[in-house]
Amino acid sequence: MEQVIYYEDYEVGAVRETTGRTITETDIVLHAGQTGDFFPHHMDAEWCRTTEFGQRIAHGTLTFSVAVGLTANVINPVAFSYGYDHLRFIAPVFIGDTIHTKVIIKEKKDHKRKKDMGIVTEAVEVYNQRDELVLVAEHLLLCEKKNADRKDKGKADD
Amino acid sequence: MEQVIYYEDYEVGAVRETTGRTITETDIVLHAGQTGDFFPHHMDAEWCRTTEFGQRIAHGTLTFSVAVGLTANVINPVAFSYGYDHLRFIAPVFIGDTIHTKVIIKEKKDHKRKKDMGIVTEAVEVYNQRDELVLVAEHLLLCEKKNADRKDKGKADD
Amino acid sequence: MEQVIYYEDYEVGAVRETTGRTITETDIVLHAGQTGDFFPHHMDAEWCRTTEFGQRIAHGTLTFSVAVGLTANVINPVAFSYGYDHLRFIAPVFIGDTIHTKVIIKEKKDHKRKKDMGIVTEAVEVYNQRDELVLVAEHLLLCEKKNADRKDKGKADD
Amino acid sequence: MEQVIYYEDYEVGAVRETTGRTITETDIVLHAGQTGDFFPHHMDAEWCRTTEFGQRIAHGTLTFSVAVGLTANVINPVAFSYGYDHLRFIAPVFIGDTIHTKVIIKEKKDHKRKKDMGIVTEAVEVYNQRDELVLVAEHLLLCEKKNADRKDKGKADD
Amino acid sequence: MEQVIYYEDYEVGAVRETTGRTITETDIVLHAGQTGDFFPHHMDAEWCRTTEFGQRIAHGTLTFSVAVGLTANVINPVAFSYGYDHLRFIAPVFIGDTIHTKVIIKEKKDHKRKKDMGIVTEAVEVYNQRDELVLVAEHLLLCEKKNADRKDKGKADD
Amino acid sequence: MEQVIYYEDYEVGAVRETTGRTITETDIVLHAGQTGDFFPHHMDAEWCRTTEFGQRIAHGTLTFSVAVGLTANVINPVAFSYGYDHLRFIAPVFIGDTIHTKVIIKEKKDHKRKKDMGIVTEAVEVYNQRDELVLVAEHLLLCEKKNADRKDKGKADD
Repeated sequence: MEQVIYYEDYEVGAVRETTGRTITETDIVLHAGQTGDFFPHHMDAEWCRTTEFGQRIAHGTLTFSVAVGLTANVINPVAFSYGYDHLRFIAPVFIGDTIHTKVIIKEKKDHKRKKDMGIVTEAVEVYNQRDELVLVAEHLLLCEKKNADRKDKGKADD
Repeated sequence: MEQVIYYEDYEVGAVRETTGRTITETDIVLHAGQTGDFFPHHMDAEWCRTTEFGQRIAHGTLTFSVAVGLTANVINPVAFSYGYDHLRFIAPVFIGDTIHTKVIIKEKKDHKRKKDMGIVTEAVEVYNQRDELVLVAEHLLLCEKKNADRKDKGKADD
Repeated sequence: MEQVIYYEDYEVGAVRETTGRTITETDIVLHAGQTGDFFPHHMDAEWCRTTEFGQRIAHGTLTFSVAVGLTANVINPVAFSYGYDHLRFIAPVFIGDTIHTKVIIKEKKDHKRKKDMGIVTEAVEVYNQRDELVLVAEHLLLCEKKNADRKDKGKADD
Repeated sequence: MEQVIYYEDYEVGAVRETTGRTITETDIVLHAGQTGDFFPHHMDAEWCRTTEFGQRIAHGTLTFSVAVGLTANVINPVAFSYGYDHLRFIAPVFIGDTIHTKVIIKEKKDHKRKKDMGIVTEAVEVYNQRDELVLVAEHLLLCEKKNADRKDKGKADD
Repeated sequence: MEQVIYYEDYEVGAVRETTGRTITETDIVLHAGQTGDFFPHHMDAEWCRTTEFGQRIAHGTLTFSVAVGLTANVINPVAFSYGYDHLRFIAPVFIGDTIHTKVIIKEKKDHKRKKDMGIVTEAVEVYNQRDELVLVAEHLLLCEKKNADRKDKGKADD
Repeated sequence: MEQVIYYEDYEVGAVRETTGRTITETDIVLHAGQTGDFFPHHMDAEWCRTTEFGQRIAHGTLTFSVAVGLTANVINPVAFSYGYDHLRFIAPVFIGDTIHTKVIIKEKKDHKRKKDMGIVTEAVEVYNQRDELVLVAEHLLLCEKKNADRKDKGKADD
């Protein structure tokens, strides 16, 4: 679904939560297959029994990718993701854990050079089924302003 | 392959480069399938023809996951990844682009509370086949020290 | 995203259209892998050159599954899919074709025995990038009524 | 394996049964990935505990696709699938259920306009390991006649 | 489909050929993902341009697995695969090549100790679309004899 | 990682062991999907309960492909795999078993015609978590000699 959300429409403090997703053994096997990371922490159940966690854990990039994917249900044609800050793997995600993502609008500021753009920072928090925080990040969103002088548009590289 | 690399062994300025990996249409379809992000930017070739890029682009989390996966060939049992800073999607990755990852040891500092640990920051740079930078991030690695007083070990939460 | 839509809320003649999805070689290979249907029509490009289409075609169940999946963006907790009528494979879908789904509310009628339920029939039409109709079906949706006597609820089998 | 079966060769009442296939968590995760349907009914084990079924259920299109795929072991070059009628999801399929398909030749009739073709209707019945019926459909097969005047051949669109 | 074929039923010199299968980029990406072999020969199109083949090649184990899989259409409950001899990768398989498998009954001999069993050797030959031989192997099949004294049965380990 | 290992560098008797890999239900489902082998031995848990093993078993080609893939962590640009001898499926691999591969340099001999090449035979042994041998094979490696007359190089077909 497409929904136009301008810089002015984002409200600091607004919160949205996604549906949940159970991280399965399949997800871990597929993520190893996609990334080439077959470290025993993810792929060797026997060896994992000897570690502090006692079992296989999800790749950090798997939890991150799924958590971000869960938020991808509204296409905003006037906003562009350009990165993340402070991505932290807080707690391990195990096979069978169900995660969901909470997105909080944390900060808004004008773009330094582009008058018709602003930067929205979203706090991304990922929780498991026991409401334990397992991952955090700050998502940076470059958004068009509603009332900006359209002459500036398209000069993304200046 | 396992190789023990202590905090002291990391040298600021040291560089390693991975083999390359061609990002295929398959990778994008599989990543959509793993994350649930079926946005037309990745999945609708017709609509993409109308955009500035003219073609489908890889998900940011796909490029990031593959780039990190490319570095996963040596298991260091005394180092633990705990996050990334300043992850930026610099340029789009298209179907058929071949990326590789360059890792540069950027900084070392003692852990504030844990005497037997240090933090190594790796600059992660991802390039395509035209040596254009497509993604950057700073990887944070928590490393054991070689000569640390082992009594402190295991108290990760203090 | 969850949105409660009662029987009374559906309006005959209402139309919604989904985003597009390019059917890739990957989709066909994965669908063969999921279903076990490795017929040469889908998997043998050489043999397909000798057929009237001259190329591989998507499985009917692939086009149907993707077309239905494209509509799965709003969870309606008071409606239940219970089947399809008149599913027809009108035209072949080739690798590289981009399909999207159009859903038209076609008919509404009371449930024969359950007073608090009604049946909504959706006409499902799937088009390719040249606006050629490739698949049709009628989707049957069992919906709760807004003002129904809740005592009847839960007796789905009577 | 290829086997030529003409319209005249189909006998009303003839029955064939396929081997079985266990529907795994992997199948559901892959089907979500193929279709983009990540509804919690299929992907969120925690939420499913709160539903009447108490667990995740297979997508209807997954059960249908696998059930049809199970029948795809003989290639008949003179028969063409053109659709399904009365597809009904009778009972939920859970992770670990083993399904197989029973195909019964139900009806034969001449094609209205094409003298050298006939239509065979197959009743498709899908059972789980407790012999409970979980899905039914009627498959429509357009078949060449053995003794037809071949001059009419190839005029599929008249 | 199940078909009982006893040791006596195999005829030296008998030949069967499978349908074809086009080896796609998807197959190579999935095989890397299944095996963890991400060598640049299979995954780095740029590097491959510098090799004698000029392009990516299929993993040997991929060609072997698909070639053997193509023969898996008849279940013989009285025969057991126990290995392969002389598996050779004769020529590279490229993306877009279509392979099929030819199986020739090459040799039959009694089992040394088990009177009710015999060993059938099948020559497995895999060809591409230009009828070039790309892989050969000898498949060893342990088969029950039709008229054997059933008292010996089940003593597989003597 | 690339490492040049010449014929002379291989030492008969040298041993290397890989990390472990748990064979999951996902691996079997994906291997069926890759190869088209959906035999009930791998895909029908109910039927498997009636067999001597009582459960699904991994495809022989899956165990072989994963076992070989586990060894693919060092790229040797002066050695070329050209086949396997005496591949034997010694014991079944079940869902949840963890396998690893042991490679022993077994034999070295000069190439008959190519003076600058030698053949290294590696004994490949695959063990499960109970140290039971499940698969063996002999891997044939064509290796360049260190001190060979380079004039002969590149004439691989003579």
